[in-house]
Amino acid sequence: MSRKKRPDKEAYIEGVLAGDRVMLSRAITLVESKLQADRELAEEVMDALMPHTGKSFRLGITGVPGVGKSTFIGRFGKEVVSKGHKLAVLAIDPSSPSSRGSILGDKTRMGALAADPRVYVRPSATGGALGGISANTREGSLICEAAGFDFIIIETVGVGQSEVAVRHMVDAFLLLLLPGAGDELQGLKKGIVEMADILVVNKADGQSVSPAREAQRAYSQAMKLFPPKLHNFPTKVLTCSSLTGDGIERLWNELTDYWQLVYKSGYMEEERRSQRVHWAKTQITDFIELYFYAHPSIKEEMPKLLQKVREGEVATLSAARKLMELFLQN
Amino acid sequence: MSRKKRPDKEAYIEGVLAGDRVMLSRAITLVESKLQADRELAEEVMDALMPHTGKSFRLGITGVPGVGKSTFIGRFGKEVVSKGHKLAVLAIDPSSPSSRGSILGDKTRMGALAADPRVYVRPSATGGALGGISANTREGSLICEAAGFDFIIIETVGVGQSEVAVRHMVDAFLLLLLPGAGDELQGLKKGIVEMADILVVNKADGQSVSPAREAQRAYSQAMKLFPPKLHNFPTKVLTCSSLTGDGIERLWNELTDYWQLVYKSGYMEEERRSQRVHWAKTQITDFIELYFYAHPSIKEEMPKLLQKVREGEVATLSAARKLMELFLQN
Repeated sequence: MSRKKRPDKEAYIEGVLAGDRVMLSRAITLVESKLQADRELAEEVMDALMPHTGKSFRLGITGVPGVGKSTFIGRFGKEVVSKGHKLAVLAIDPSSPSSRGSILGDKTRMGALAADPRVYVRPSATGGALGGISANTREGSLICEAAGFDFIIIETVGVGQSEVAVRHMVDAFLLLLLPGAGDELQGLKKGIVEMADILVVNKADGQSVSPAREAQRAYSQAMKLFPPKLHNFPTKVLTCSSLTGDGIERLWNELTDYWQLVYKSGYMEEERRSQRVHWAKTQITDFIELYFYAHPSIKEEMPKLLQKVREGEVATLSAARKLMELFLQN
Repeated sequence: MSRKKRPDKEAYIEGVLAGDRVMLSRAITLVESKLQADRELAEEVMDALMPHTGKSFRLGITGVPGVGKSTFIGRFGKEVVSKGHKLAVLAIDPSSPSSRGSILGDKTRMGALAADPRVYVRPSATGGALGGISANTREGSLICEAAGFDFIIIETVGVGQSEVAVRHMVDAFLLLLLPGAGDELQGLKKGIVEMADILVVNKADGQSVSPAREAQRAYSQAMKLFPPKLHNFPTKVLTCSSLTGDGIERLWNELTDYWQLVYKSGYMEEERRSQRVHWAKTQITDFIELYFYAHPSIKEEMPKLLQKVREGEVATLSAARKLMELFLQN
């Protein structure tokens, strides 16, 4: 397939706002691009789309590999669309080594969901420090909102840093767990459990119904040890089966209760304001480092200086200052 | 007490190299200073001291508040000096609200240790993001080495980020634990347990001897779940009593074995090389941000722009770029 001519700014904006899926996908690819020319266009597109964002419920879903995230999203997503929502899923595809993604892989894992016309699934690569969450996953979710999707799921693997990033993008954070609480708690970072607004023990079917209930009890006990959240919604522990659908409706009702609480109390809007400032600051730091490390004098001098630092010939502080002065001179 | 005239570069260097405790303390204060004039002098002093650093064993000690870190260091430090070492302790003093520190408080907590002429204790404030570990705690430890101390202890509270920072400063990381393993494991971040080279269950005396042994068994089991470390020294779990001294000699022997292994295998030297590069990069990032946020145009424009970001009027990406351009223009 030959590479199409790049659309102009208006084509991106109008395409996304019209809900055109091809333009939606291309706009997300644009904000993920690291090319300088793409970056500037991406910023203009994002500025134009901003007024059309915000009208969705943003849900982060995490859990260790093997917990059944994709199958869960496949089943839960059916519930979401059955309630009249348009659903966008920004999902990690572990089968994909590059950002091109294996859409077929995701389609299989999520069952019929990806084929539903009310659903848009965007797989991402799992490479990189953030376990599939790229720096611009948040921009991707905003573009989906501008395209008319009013329920956004951002899926992440339970590895730590990516959960912190996703927590700053979403209104609610759902932690998916396996039956068998003892081992589980050790495999999870405590910080991730603390970040969750709702815990769901998955695979509560067949012989696992009883272990799932045990896990539910153990986690419910553990949750009492944490201080209450700012939104005052107690962190509930539910069970569900992505196979039989048991517990999915209950989960939907809980999320609806949560949503109404945080929306009415103004918590959600205030949280979103803080999140925007958080991301601006993060992106400022990213920008500065990008400019610094791309600077010709830095590129030339830094490896030499770091070699001296490595061998202990130069103190780290003076090496840092020398590079800073080089950067500011030019 | 009136503030003394600031010594010149040579006075700092000669004083530290001569092991003069007053100049040692003032040199550490100098590298902790945020004043521009002090920063440059600090860098020159560090450059001159670098060739005299490195001849020590650097031990990080962490544990949750209440685990008895200071009492442990008081007892363990006695063992260190009894083996002929000169010991410097860079310790957190929770009783100190400012960087001036409450030396009396530390002296009490560490018993006779701080009064020993072979020991230098430097308390730090607990304020700030890194729980008492300042950006320049590492420089402080290097200055102690240049002053002839060949065993460095860096104490930190078990809160997360500071442990990661200290892990990058030391040759070995010791995690102090309380008897009563179950509750303990939940209170600790898994990442901290993973970083430890040796675990010590403290307070193994009186009625706690048996719970301490239980905790030892539980942790030993848990340790088997972690992959082996690069240095191939198995993460042992010991017990000790800072009160009776039981287990202190055993700990000393384990640390000596560890030290010989990492020294002979070349692991330690390679690790220290990586650590130097790590700190140079960290300080470069700190420097860039410092310059950026201190820039007059940024100071003026950033609050206005962040307000627009907060209200969703400007996309985060274009706000970040606008600020970057402002910074580079001037």
